[in-house]
Amino acid sequence: MAEYKIHFLPGKKSAYFEEGINFRDAALELGLIIESSCAGIGTCAKCKVIIQEGANPPTKVEELLLTPKQLSKGMRLSCQALLRDNSVCTIPLESQLFKDQIVTEGTKGLFPLAPDIRKLKIKLPEPQLGEKYFDFERLLAAIQNGKTEKIIYDFHLTRKIANLLRDNDFEVTAVLDKNNLLFVESGDTSNTLYGVAVDIGTTSIATKLINITSGEIIAVASDLNPQRTYGADVISRINYVVEHKGGLELQHRLVVKQINTLIEKLCEDVKVQKENIYKIVVAGNTVMQHFLLNIDPRNLAYSPYTPVFQGPLTIAAKEIGIEINKNGILYTIPNLACFVGSDMTAVLTVLNLEETENIQLVVDIGTNGEIVLGSKNKLLCTSSPAGPAWEGAYITWGMRAARGAIERAEIVNDDLEFRTIGGADPIGICGSGLLDMVSEFLRKNIIDKTGRVLSAKEINSAVGTKLKSRIVPQESGANDIAIVRIDDDKHIMLMQKDIREVQLAKSTIAAGIKILIKELQIEAEDISNIYIAGAFGNHVRGKDAVDIGLIPKIPEDRIKFIGNAALSGAEAILLSKQARMKAEHIAKIIDYIEISDRSDFQEHFVGSMHFPLD
Amino acid sequence: MAEYKIHFLPGKKSAYFEEGINFRDAALELGLIIESSCAGIGTCAKCKVIIQEGANPPTKVEELLLTPKQLSKGMRLSCQALLRDNSVCTIPLESQLFKDQIVTEGTKGLFPLAPDIRKLKIKLPEPQLGEKYFDFERLLAAIQNGKTEKIIYDFHLTRKIANLLRDNDFEVTAVLDKNNLLFVESGDTSNTLYGVAVDIGTTSIATKLINITSGEIIAVASDLNPQRTYGADVISRINYVVEHKGGLELQHRLVVKQINTLIEKLCEDVKVQKENIYKIVVAGNTVMQHFLLNIDPRNLAYSPYTPVFQGPLTIAAKEIGIEINKNGILYTIPNLACFVGSDMTAVLTVLNLEETENIQLVVDIGTNGEIVLGSKNKLLCTSSPAGPAWEGAYITWGMRAARGAIERAEIVNDDLEFRTIGGADPIGICGSGLLDMVSEFLRKNIIDKTGRVLSAKEINSAVGTKLKSRIVPQESGANDIAIVRIDDDKHIMLMQKDIREVQLAKSTIAAGIKILIKELQIEAEDISNIYIAGAFGNHVRGKDAVDIGLIPKIPEDRIKFIGNAALSGAEAILLSKQARMKAEHIAKIIDYIEISDRSDFQEHFVGSMHFPLD
Repeated sequence: MAEYKIHFLPGKKSAYFEEGINFRDAALELGLIIESSCAGIGTCAKCKVIIQEGANPPTKVEELLLTPKQLSKGMRLSCQALLRDNSVCTIPLESQLFKDQIVTEGTKGLFPLAPDIRKLKIKLPEPQLGEKYFDFERLLAAIQNGKTEKIIYDFHLTRKIANLLRDNDFEVTAVLDKNNLLFVESGDTSNTLYGVAVDIGTTSIATKLINITSGEIIAVASDLNPQRTYGADVISRINYVVEHKGGLELQHRLVVKQINTLIEKLCEDVKVQKENIYKIVVAGNTVMQHFLLNIDPRNLAYSPYTPVFQGPLTIAAKEIGIEINKNGILYTIPNLACFVGSDMTAVLTVLNLEETENIQLVVDIGTNGEIVLGSKNKLLCTSSPAGPAWEGAYITWGMRAARGAIERAEIVNDDLEFRTIGGADPIGICGSGLLDMVSEFLRKNIIDKTGRVLSAKEINSAVGTKLKSRIVPQESGANDIAIVRIDDDKHIMLMQKDIREVQLAKSTIAAGIKILIKELQIEAEDISNIYIAGAFGNHVRGKDAVDIGLIPKIPEDRIKFIGNAALSGAEAILLSKQARMKAEHIAKIIDYIEISDRSDFQEHFVGSMHFPLD
Repeated sequence: MAEYKIHFLPGKKSAYFEEGINFRDAALELGLIIESSCAGIGTCAKCKVIIQEGANPPTKVEELLLTPKQLSKGMRLSCQALLRDNSVCTIPLESQLFKDQIVTEGTKGLFPLAPDIRKLKIKLPEPQLGEKYFDFERLLAAIQNGKTEKIIYDFHLTRKIANLLRDNDFEVTAVLDKNNLLFVESGDTSNTLYGVAVDIGTTSIATKLINITSGEIIAVASDLNPQRTYGADVISRINYVVEHKGGLELQHRLVVKQINTLIEKLCEDVKVQKENIYKIVVAGNTVMQHFLLNIDPRNLAYSPYTPVFQGPLTIAAKEIGIEINKNGILYTIPNLACFVGSDMTAVLTVLNLEETENIQLVVDIGTNGEIVLGSKNKLLCTSSPAGPAWEGAYITWGMRAARGAIERAEIVNDDLEFRTIGGADPIGICGSGLLDMVSEFLRKNIIDKTGRVLSAKEINSAVGTKLKSRIVPQESGANDIAIVRIDDDKHIMLMQKDIREVQLAKSTIAAGIKILIKELQIEAEDISNIYIAGAFGNHVRGKDAVDIGLIPKIPEDRIKFIGNAALSGAEAILLSKQARMKAEHIAKIIDYIEISDRSDFQEHFVGSMHFPLD
């Protein structure tokens, strides 16, 4: 598949993307969130951008919604315009979403650019006869520059320092992470320093290549987590490890190899040398972090679900085979609890729950539902075993958010319209598409409160025939819904059993939220903001999540979908010690609530199974 | 050669020694200094000990000097009684020398027993469902025990901790060096911890095995430094490295291998497992330390003589192939300057120069003369290229202080009497023997102030014929002195040229001392104590050193020979963080004076060439 570069203005972020991606999604991958209220359907016309270079002709939707004058200026709807050539694209101020702290420009501006990893040019005086001069200690003193903090280093660095100094007129560049001297380079290389932020999801792995010196994201890449072959969820993968000799090593190698492949791609895309990458910051759930470090997570599969480590751990990247500079390091963001991983820590790092009096809720919907509720007064977390329905598992036509997945669906003019990722022919339904469909059919009473798909006869007469004709009765008496014909005799279907899976998935999360509300002794109405991260990306409407009862009912404008905020958190931690310290602080203070052994969890779970829409 | 064990009382120190060693020397190797004013000749009868077990019959000297009552109690002269069987020996209070801080019981009592390296038994509570429990962080918190000091560790430790805890009912033993967690052992092993103190001399390597828990020295071992094959002094060895590819690696491997052999021997002697040794503390001159760590010291061979590192360095012992516990560490005592090494730092650690107002002088006579002069107000060090004469090099019959070396000589009853190490047949002359002979012949005016050996005719008539008959005229007109016939036609000789070597060696040191006196703006008389360490061991008389002009003339009782105090210093640093901190402090504050480029050095050097005796 061809790739083209988009250069976004005014943020000056550039990256390569696959042909056919829409500009809105491309911007999102760089952390640039474009306004939208139709969530990409192409009806609200709020996601306007100006494509100065590389634009292909406007679509019919755009011709309808934009004035000739706007079109003549190169204005486009970013959810409609697809990438077909190297492009330059300006996002006007009015189209920039969430101009608050969350995601505007990646995480830039949210924290000071003050990375733990840094380079320091050092010019030493040459030794003189009679001076008490030791090459290495002189270098250390120059690095300390009067401060008393002890510099830590691998003694192997001493073996080369004498020649290094003398071959470079005593000018060298020290590479440091905190007070850890990683390496000493010849001459002045202080302007060349890169890092990689990684989010290891159970389903996919996302990475960003970041210029540490400027703070700019210069490339993004993501791919599947190849461990998926060994189970869709973490428990199946742990079971694989328990049951197979060498299983841990295998899971470990798979994830490391994939990260290396992604790093290779990032570097190729923007012509950066891997040797100039000195740090990699990793978010991921607790089990993913164990696998990454080749640490056996088997005790997480059995009560009391005890992880080996919380972290943060800082290790030599080469120790686990990560291919960056051979002296480079890997930092694991600390985990919060057994099944509330460092991905949630990273998300919390770019939010402000622990800083304000307002009570806020964060729900990260992946294979597990990870839930955090609280304020500066008390912060609680829990996990609920939501299962990977939102990532496509156990859903008949389910798939992850990849090219060809139906990611958006809406009932327009008495029929279902949808959009696929990349504008490709539909091949399945991803999480956001699933949520859309269920909530749309709910609102039309095609699905009732109990989750049952009505027969064509039962459906309200106000619903048009086109929609009714989609109902496909089964022999059992249950009804499925046909979404789109993809072959002469085949339809992508939303099956009755899929809706049951959605009910299970949403009610475990809803029950988890209710227990945290109870533990905090508040009411749902006390929640000022809800952030939804994870599988849904940025494509979901808050209304849908409320309507199916996934999250408490609060005004829609206070529900924010923050997509892969875990990766943004990792990026922030890579670029700012303040962010890193914030993450470590949150990991210390947060309290964990276990729900699996509570009788009220069952109660809430059963009570949340119905859809609340009325 | 057979070895026997001596158990010394009241200090309860035991070790194995070679058959034939006298009890005084054996005690010395354990740091137990026995009183003596004849320096082991067997005339003063001050070195009395009681050999309760393993004694062989008294010698004629002992029968002469001890009363029948004393003999019946097992009393012996420790310089005369030789080891022939496993023995128990009490050193009575009146025979214990230097009851001050220097060496009495090793370094015990000099510093608190508070080693950086230590073991900590930990019993963790078992995790409970719903608890925020991470195996490794729980362990770390237990180690920190409320303190905030961050624990450093190799992340590999996390890989085994889960099973380790569960296999041992959550009881384990943490091995720590400072805040560095080295390893976690199963169950309670907190009473089993050993360390090794090492002094790497240019000529020989000395080691002590120490029970860290009790602070006891439990075995000693020493042997040649095998690098000697590549040069008697450090500069020739550096030249070897410069001129031979792989030369550095070779020097490195030689010293590591010898240390491993000595550790093996120490362990065998007292049945200690190498795996229970977790730390090795190394003293040695700057070049030896570079070789040990496989760091190229070539810049020390050329002005401005810049070492790569000062230290202290703490490294994983296995990194350089040292065979102790695989997680054990090696600590290098910091060096002071280019040619004033960590051996001198170690010596200073067991003295008190930097603590008192008194001005004190320390001279460590090895291949280099390392000199320190000062008080708490100012501490100066320098090195003078004395050459290895005192270690036997360039002396016709010179040898190091080994079995068969003449280590003591005295003119008694108009002839030269001598003693060899181990009471063996004489095979050469070591440093202390050389110093004895030269000063004895000087005092009899057989050698004159200029260093010339007089002819038999020129010698004062009061000198008896036996002595005169030792003069052997050479064709050149110079005279040599016959010491002892070792073969039908061969004598061990003290040659005129050997005396010239002694003059060179002593005057470089004397000149170095004079320059430090000048730099400190004091007079020689202001020096309150002189400590002489190094090649001479404890066998030398202060009078001799003064008489040949090696050191300034001060009352003899203020001149102390402290033998291998470097090894004692290493031992102290192994056993006490206070000693370690003292060493690091001294290394920071001491000033270095370079003498090689000073015109006044040449002046003092030439001026010191004559013998001062008059």
